[in-house]
Amino acid sequence: MLTGKNYVGYDLSAESNSIFESINPETEKKNNKFHNATEGEINKAVEKAKNAFLEYSAKTAEERAGFLDTIAEEILGLGEELISTYCQESGYPEGRANGERGRTVGQLKAFATYIRTENWKDSFEDKADPNRSPLPKPGILRTSIPIGPVAVFGASNFPLAFSTAGGDTASALAAGSPVVVKAHPSHPGTGELVASAIINAAKKTGMPEGVFSHLNGNTNEVGTLLVTHPGIKGVGFTGSLKAGRALYDLAAKREEPIPVFAEMGSVNPVVVSSSTLQKRGKEVAHQLAGSFNLGAGQFCTSPGIIFTVGSEGLSEFEKELVGSSSQINAQCMLNKGIKQAFEKGKKTVSCSPYITVLSESNEEEGNRVTGSIVKVSSKNFIENDKLQEEVFGPFTMLVTCDNIKELNKTIDNLKGQLTASLIAEKEEFKDLKTTIQLLQHKAGRIIFNAMPTGVEVSAAMTHGGPYPASTDSRFTSVGIPAIKRWLRPVSFQDFPQELLP
Amino acid sequence: MLTGKNYVGYDLSAESNSIFESINPETEKKNNKFHNATEGEINKAVEKAKNAFLEYSAKTAEERAGFLDTIAEEILGLGEELISTYCQESGYPEGRANGERGRTVGQLKAFATYIRTENWKDSFEDKADPNRSPLPKPGILRTSIPIGPVAVFGASNFPLAFSTAGGDTASALAAGSPVVVKAHPSHPGTGELVASAIINAAKKTGMPEGVFSHLNGNTNEVGTLLVTHPGIKGVGFTGSLKAGRALYDLAAKREEPIPVFAEMGSVNPVVVSSSTLQKRGKEVAHQLAGSFNLGAGQFCTSPGIIFTVGSEGLSEFEKELVGSSSQINAQCMLNKGIKQAFEKGKKTVSCSPYITVLSESNEEEGNRVTGSIVKVSSKNFIENDKLQEEVFGPFTMLVTCDNIKELNKTIDNLKGQLTASLIAEKEEFKDLKTTIQLLQHKAGRIIFNAMPTGVEVSAAMTHGGPYPASTDSRFTSVGIPAIKRWLRPVSFQDFPQELLP
Repeated sequence: MLTGKNYVGYDLSAESNSIFESINPETEKKNNKFHNATEGEINKAVEKAKNAFLEYSAKTAEERAGFLDTIAEEILGLGEELISTYCQESGYPEGRANGERGRTVGQLKAFATYIRTENWKDSFEDKADPNRSPLPKPGILRTSIPIGPVAVFGASNFPLAFSTAGGDTASALAAGSPVVVKAHPSHPGTGELVASAIINAAKKTGMPEGVFSHLNGNTNEVGTLLVTHPGIKGVGFTGSLKAGRALYDLAAKREEPIPVFAEMGSVNPVVVSSSTLQKRGKEVAHQLAGSFNLGAGQFCTSPGIIFTVGSEGLSEFEKELVGSSSQINAQCMLNKGIKQAFEKGKKTVSCSPYITVLSESNEEEGNRVTGSIVKVSSKNFIENDKLQEEVFGPFTMLVTCDNIKELNKTIDNLKGQLTASLIAEKEEFKDLKTTIQLLQHKAGRIIFNAMPTGVEVSAAMTHGGPYPASTDSRFTSVGIPAIKRWLRPVSFQDFPQELLP
Repeated sequence: MLTGKNYVGYDLSAESNSIFESINPETEKKNNKFHNATEGEINKAVEKAKNAFLEYSAKTAEERAGFLDTIAEEILGLGEELISTYCQESGYPEGRANGERGRTVGQLKAFATYIRTENWKDSFEDKADPNRSPLPKPGILRTSIPIGPVAVFGASNFPLAFSTAGGDTASALAAGSPVVVKAHPSHPGTGELVASAIINAAKKTGMPEGVFSHLNGNTNEVGTLLVTHPGIKGVGFTGSLKAGRALYDLAAKREEPIPVFAEMGSVNPVVVSSSTLQKRGKEVAHQLAGSFNLGAGQFCTSPGIIFTVGSEGLSEFEKELVGSSSQINAQCMLNKGIKQAFEKGKKTVSCSPYITVLSESNEEEGNRVTGSIVKVSSKNFIENDKLQEEVFGPFTMLVTCDNIKELNKTIDNLKGQLTASLIAEKEEFKDLKTTIQLLQHKAGRIIFNAMPTGVEVSAAMTHGGPYPASTDSRFTSVGIPAIKRWLRPVSFQDFPQELLP
């Protein structure tokens, strides 16, 4: 069923002879061949999106909701082929595949329900007052309209929930913006299957051609051409700081700069208070070992830094963290490049003279890895900015603070984060007021007595944070408010009812 | 009473011997001397803002509202000196000075009322469900926090309402962000007086030192150092495309990019339909002459382009537009540089081979100008992108379209605008559906049967629009929602009530 071609609107297209192959990270065997999109195909896809925009944005919320619901059904209709392709391309187990499909379908339906039922346009009317003096007051209705065609980049670590029909695509289509997806080259087959589901749904529900396109590319070229195309008005991205920043820089240099919502690097600090260390250090260490190893540490919210306060209970905490982590089986990473970057990042940190290695991961076969833990004093941590850089994978760093004052100084020196967690006891609340205030200015989500992994798809969720966690901390990429990224306000002054949109 | 010094927090400071003078644009006489801020003073001001941030952002809304109300009182307390300084520095008449003071005070009080009474943090709670399967659902409260110290640039054309204590400053202080103002060198005395009012209010209401600073500068250096300082987390600006883009580029190149809200160039197209031309062309032409000449054309929303449809009534419309404009007395522009740029811009357009000059403004003395009107066919307008560039001042361009199809093509080719106006009759509504759809994707505000000048300070207002009208069309710089520019969401997961902010 896989063709290896691009979807340029409704057309399957393969103009280029430049081909790449998707690889099974477990077996390192080749899966399928895919055609890189050409500049001509990219331009055609954006032109089709531009041409579809007026018609698509004028569809009723009910019509767009029907489209989203149908995409969800079509994805479920792909059945076993989607699950097996997902597993072959990602190395994730089948349970994860099923879970992520459920989440993807759930997101599509949640946005459909939202635009059907809620005041998602944030409309507000300020009524006219013709008798106001010295000047009559005009009547103004503010509502929201979509910004135009959007480019979405598939994420390596969520082949379904943050890729072709993931949160970025679902929220943009809900807003009324056509979408051109740049598929992630690690899972292009999963992408093509999902793209076919979206195209089928568009045809079934009478959406204009060009509302969706899907382009392959295993170099930077496709992304660069997409983001710099004048017809693209916004960008959604989840991935590394380096790639996200490159897209941001391209967009900022355009004659017309456009917003880039890049969710990038975060080490998701977890503060373990002194009472916690003393009273339940072992239990928390066990939870943390599970959290930083989860999905081979390939979660945006994986806890890469653990701040401990005080010395009592610290050695037992360390011992349990190392012990629990060592009992977790080796896991396969998403691709060879990610495994290599993990090994390199780990080595760079471990070679710092201030670092003590508590648990080195064993050399494993192929792309498999086990958890790795290092330790540093907060004083040395503050002096070495580089230690804040994310090591993507099952890696965490214990940063030991003597007291709350030292902890607060260390937090004040942190870069922006997606999450920050506080594990503490009731008797410490009074002493932790400043700590909490500092944490909230460093992250998009503050968690009390729980692990950072696991991002609830909720209307109250903020998945984003100060740079470098994301390029725009005022928006979330998970949860219903993610739709706001693709909308802008427009005010209608003194307009007759019949002319309002 | 004027010192010519900078306010670095509470301190009046004049480290530099580099001095500039404010000029009365009416008489071209020198008013007062002002000290450029040094790099040391800029750094000190930002450091003080950073140090004030935690304390200021933790003040209650009631405390911050009291601060804003007191600023308003202190500004009124400046009395006649403020009005005369304003007039001497701007060349605007006293009536305008009084009106703008009223608006400035009104804005401060409106933000105070808003944060006292409304859900300005956009808080939303998603309650926990410990019994949910397979995983318990966490409780999440999303609220909003200020982004940190903000740099505000005073605007030449609104010495009060968009300068030292203007909309940008008022909204940032309301949000909980300290403000460092770069005063506009055209009206530094007005700025210093207002700054003294803010400092007095901060002292009276117990705000931390550093919540406000005020820096002078008649070169780009002060602004460049401010925007690139790591302690600044956002920028507010109103002015030219060139200056706004320069600030945007500086901010985008930082290690940590920050948002820049620059309200820049807009020609505010007005569509005059064929029925309007036939039925009431004279009346509309008279209104347009008043609108594009208002305040010597120095309004962001001055109508710089008038689209006419059809030929019937067109020559009477032109005649009335020229005639009404010629009856308006010469007006003084804000400074010599603005007058020179107006003359240059007008000349560049008039020299285009496709342009017919309908009404050339007379050579006037000093910085005085009269209105200027040119004409071009829509075909030639589309082919010459340069004709879309704003000529700041009393200038407008008639763009003649043969029919609605041609009008729509011309609108589709337009760049982003603050406003777009439609002057039309009821019998044309059906034919204008596409026109309205196209207009809404080009502007932040669409106006029916009224002139674009005059921006209501309303909760429903959008003053901003697609680039180059502003750098971020998702936000407004006028009206209560302007506060959103300085806030970001943060989600508290599973937090005990007593630890919430």
